[in-house]
Amino acid sequence: MGDQLKLFGSWGSPFSVRVENALKLKGIQYEYFEEDLSNKSPLLLQYNPVHKKVPALVHNGKPIVESLVILEYIDETWKGNHPILPQDPYEKAMARFWAKFVDEKCMPALSKTIWSMGDQYEKDKAEAVKLLRVLENEISGKKFFGGESIGLVDISANFIAYWYRGPLQEALGLDVFTKDEFPNLWKWAEDFVNDSVINQNLPPKEKLIAAFPPPYLGEHLVAFFKSRLASSQVGG
Amino acid sequence: MGDQLKLFGSWGSPFSVRVENALKLKGIQYEYFEEDLSNKSPLLLQYNPVHKKVPALVHNGKPIVESLVILEYIDETWKGNHPILPQDPYEKAMARFWAKFVDEKCMPALSKTIWSMGDQYEKDKAEAVKLLRVLENEISGKKFFGGESIGLVDISANFIAYWYRGPLQEALGLDVFTKDEFPNLWKWAEDFVNDSVINQNLPPKEKLIAAFPPPYLGEHLVAFFKSRLASSQVGG
Repeated sequence: MGDQLKLFGSWGSPFSVRVENALKLKGIQYEYFEEDLSNKSPLLLQYNPVHKKVPALVHNGKPIVESLVILEYIDETWKGNHPILPQDPYEKAMARFWAKFVDEKCMPALSKTIWSMGDQYEKDKAEAVKLLRVLENEISGKKFFGGESIGLVDISANFIAYWYRGPLQEALGLDVFTKDEFPNLWKWAEDFVNDSVINQNLPPKEKLIAAFPPPYLGEHLVAFFKSRLASSQVGG
Repeated sequence: MGDQLKLFGSWGSPFSVRVENALKLKGIQYEYFEEDLSNKSPLLLQYNPVHKKVPALVHNGKPIVESLVILEYIDETWKGNHPILPQDPYEKAMARFWAKFVDEKCMPALSKTIWSMGDQYEKDKAEAVKLLRVLENEISGKKFFGGESIGLVDISANFIAYWYRGPLQEALGLDVFTKDEFPNLWKWAEDFVNDSVINQNLPPKEKLIAAFPPPYLGEHLVAFFKSRLASSQVGG
């Protein structure tokens, strides 16, 4: 009551969308400010002086940054609807472990496959596949990572479930996260993106493809993608 | 009561010592198993199959790994003595933010200065100094990062307060974290390592220097240190 909640985000950033996912799942009202990542607002720089990045959540004037930190803050502050972390300390530790694994291991490894070609691509693919196998094993027998409803790990892995699996792989012709190789993880990803709340809260595929490289990867990728397309046409 | 608590650690690892710091501050009894990092025990590999690293805390048969995840687990499970995280959700978010900053930014940047020489060292030093300035600013006016008593951020920054500031800088002749440049952070580091509990729970300096490179940095550093020493002798 009387809470003022502002989110400074970027529509194409999975980190930013993580926070929107959580707020929407909990049914929390907030005011959204779209940042131009090539010309960040003075407010964003004021709220996140250390990293100068989206997302920044500002609650009654107080800023919280780093998406995983924000997700925990949201869950602790609005305990009611749709818990994002489990209550049990051990289960909570497991959720934190897997979210960290997604953030620190899987996302960098998958991102590498976007950059690389030829032998390097095969190497990077092998590493990414190894990490996805760990997730494939972990999700086996469960609907979501935390059980029956969407939680911290699922939200943290939105890049895998949506950005990477769909638009990125298709546009770039990658074959890393495939349905054949990862049936359980594929099913999880479908359940996640088809969730009635999440579904309303993901950037449209066409808009993402048109805007590649996604803002969070930086503009220097434009040249790379162009050369990749050119060389695949020449080679193909 | 009836709790069985085992810690698989390595005496020279700041990550491992973080967990010991927290358990000792809270006065929790545990059984300690020293791991040989060049020949890890089957139990460690069983408890941490994903990362295969120390520390691993095993509570009544259930493993928790990743030092920051373990610290939060300890604080949630043994709420009584010496809270490690603040209770207020906003203060808690701030503690998590700074612990993450230390882990993901400061430690890699400081570690780089250990590896590099000449112009590269000057570049790496400049980056590390920039990050330490952020901490210098944050600690200004406070005894510890969380206030009057040692908390999550202080424990997470034990590498900066002890390993790096003392043994590493001295043995390698580095001039990154100096008292002149960082008076507040230096005072904080002294208060931290002189705390009556922490003080009993840090690896002896001579033992660390004799064992350089620290186990967590890998054996390939041995050759580097030898060449560094050789070239500095040649260079006069």
